[in-house]
Amino acid sequence: MATPLSLADIQARLPQLSGWSLVNGKLHKQFVFSSFIQAFGWMSGVALVAEKLDHHPEWMNVYNRVTVDLVTHDAHGITDLDFELAERMNQLATG
Amino acid sequence: MATPLSLADIQARLPQLSGWSLVNGKLHKQFVFSSFIQAFGWMSGVALVAEKLDHHPEWMNVYNRVTVDLVTHDAHGITDLDFELAERMNQLATG
Repeated sequence: MATPLSLADIQARLPQLSGWSLVNGKLHKQFVFSSFIQAFGWMSGVALVAEKLDHHPEWMNVYNRVTVDLVTHDAHGITDLDFELAERMNQLATG
Repeated sequence: MATPLSLADIQARLPQLSGWSLVNGKLHKQFVFSSFIQAFGWMSGVALVAEKLDHHPEWMNVYNRVTVDLVTHDAHGITDLDFELAERMNQLATG
């Protein structure tokens, strides 16, 4: 079972995670791409990573934008898994 | 340019579109699948159709659920394109 991180831990780690912030108790970021093809291509990569991690995002797509919220429901908080998925999302977005 | 449908037209056509309703001026439906793999597999099919139609959904995915809203922003309303995409989404969900 993943352990929820403390607010102090989350705030200490957030600066290393480009573009992410803490919103409503979740790690939050909006990704903007050049087209729907680029956006959904990125989502497809993230989907493979998420399934492999067995940890899935809450995400909303409108054309070239994808808004993401990450939280670990089982742990009732943000865990290492959320930071790992966020980092992988950043890596996939920057090629 | 697509022409927005009248409310009367929309309400006349909705009964033929299983599971869809009119919410906040958009065609709305929540699809529930058996897993994330099933949900994202369906989304991948829909993405190909959407790109081909050059008409894209607003959609939110959380694990095995996908909530969809369809509207034609250019036309400031619901058009034939929204009904076409909704119908294709239903077809892809039922195999």
